[in-house]
Amino acid sequence: MKINVVRSVLEAGEASAAENRRRLDAAGVVAINVLSAPGSGKTALLESTIPALGDIRCAVLVGDLQTTRDAERLGPLAAQVTQINTEGGCHLSPTQVAEAIKGLSLDGITFLFIENVGNMVCPAVFDLGEHLRVVLLSTPEGDDKVAKYPPLFQTADAILLTKVDLIDVLDYDAARVREDLSRINTAAPLIELSSKTGQGMDEWLGWLRAQRPGPEDLHAPRGRRDDRGQD
Amino acid sequence: MKINVVRSVLEAGEASAAENRRRLDAAGVVAINVLSAPGSGKTALLESTIPALGDIRCAVLVGDLQTTRDAERLGPLAAQVTQINTEGGCHLSPTQVAEAIKGLSLDGITFLFIENVGNMVCPAVFDLGEHLRVVLLSTPEGDDKVAKYPPLFQTADAILLTKVDLIDVLDYDAARVREDLSRINTAAPLIELSSKTGQGMDEWLGWLRAQRPGPEDLHAPRGRRDDRGQD
Repeated sequence: MKINVVRSVLEAGEASAAENRRRLDAAGVVAINVLSAPGSGKTALLESTIPALGDIRCAVLVGDLQTTRDAERLGPLAAQVTQINTEGGCHLSPTQVAEAIKGLSLDGITFLFIENVGNMVCPAVFDLGEHLRVVLLSTPEGDDKVAKYPPLFQTADAILLTKVDLIDVLDYDAARVREDLSRINTAAPLIELSSKTGQGMDEWLGWLRAQRPGPEDLHAPRGRRDDRGQD
Repeated sequence: MKINVVRSVLEAGEASAAENRRRLDAAGVVAINVLSAPGSGKTALLESTIPALGDIRCAVLVGDLQTTRDAERLGPLAAQVTQINTEGGCHLSPTQVAEAIKGLSLDGITFLFIENVGNMVCPAVFDLGEHLRVVLLSTPEGDDKVAKYPPLFQTADAILLTKVDLIDVLDYDAARVREDLSRINTAAPLIELSSKTGQGMDEWLGWLRAQRPGPEDLHAPRGRRDDRGQD
């Protein structure tokens, strides 16, 4: 009788994530796992980003415990949007993403944004089969969150400091964030951004456009993100 | 061979929570589990609250994945402060709280504040042995969070809408929060509060003072919070 239940579940998850990446690679789609605390502005970022990408077609999977509010906000903007309700789960799982991908038409899609459940802990440890991770940190959350939640920031390919339009009314020290990041992740750019005023959007969109697959990547596997190196 | 591992773990947790409550009841201490997303202002609230309570002595347990920053902030203010590092765990557990309580001197303590890990999902489902739950929701997180994270708000004995000093610079609809709450929790007061300006502090401190054990409660078990009724 097998009793190593936890190991089996994790292995099943890893296999599912790898299969998701193969499907996305085959379709030439770059998947971006978007992670943050609740209310850091993930949906607002995508509301600004998707129209600004113009001809670059995007699909979105959006995870929440309940409601379809985010999908309703993004539905008019993206080529395809699917809401995943986790019914109490604190993160999206690779099998939920696999199921949702089956329902998408990936033809002509460049970016698949996967907006994870708002949570700085659980989503950090689950590979969904994404190629890149973008982590948001909003200024009202405080300048101590990199030190308090290092696993989330360690695995980020880009970090967006959001709601910087509020920085003048907050007691906020962006240098502290940069200093904490310097100890755990020096490869990911930190982009100061406001979806409200547009500050930093050009830098973010420039980074994002550079992640499109080049001609040599088309129909070739992009590989696991942790094989691609962080530095 | 037993394979119902999950059930055993949950049962062990429930037993530990009940034992914590018995210890606290015997000492005449009211334990308050303080829950919210990261950066909603839990520590700032306690920084304002503990000195304002005057002669009412408070102890604090504070949970974080890493760092002792919150304990350092609260150390000079409370009678006793213990930091619990969860080392990646997304919530405090009743056994971690049991271990921490052993290290406290409960004599003369009225309130034990248990500042949970910043997370709107996992901490909601773990009974730590507390008597009351206070849930914070900060205005910059957005007015849609009650609908998105109902389990957290359903179990609250009081809900604090924090950082209301920012409401003028946000596109925020407090009526939407009240409407969503009216569907899931009508018993808990919603207190609009700013630790920065002091707005709402009198109402919050009034609620808190009313939770002190009366003469009839001293040395008598207060019972499980879910036996005490929500309405």
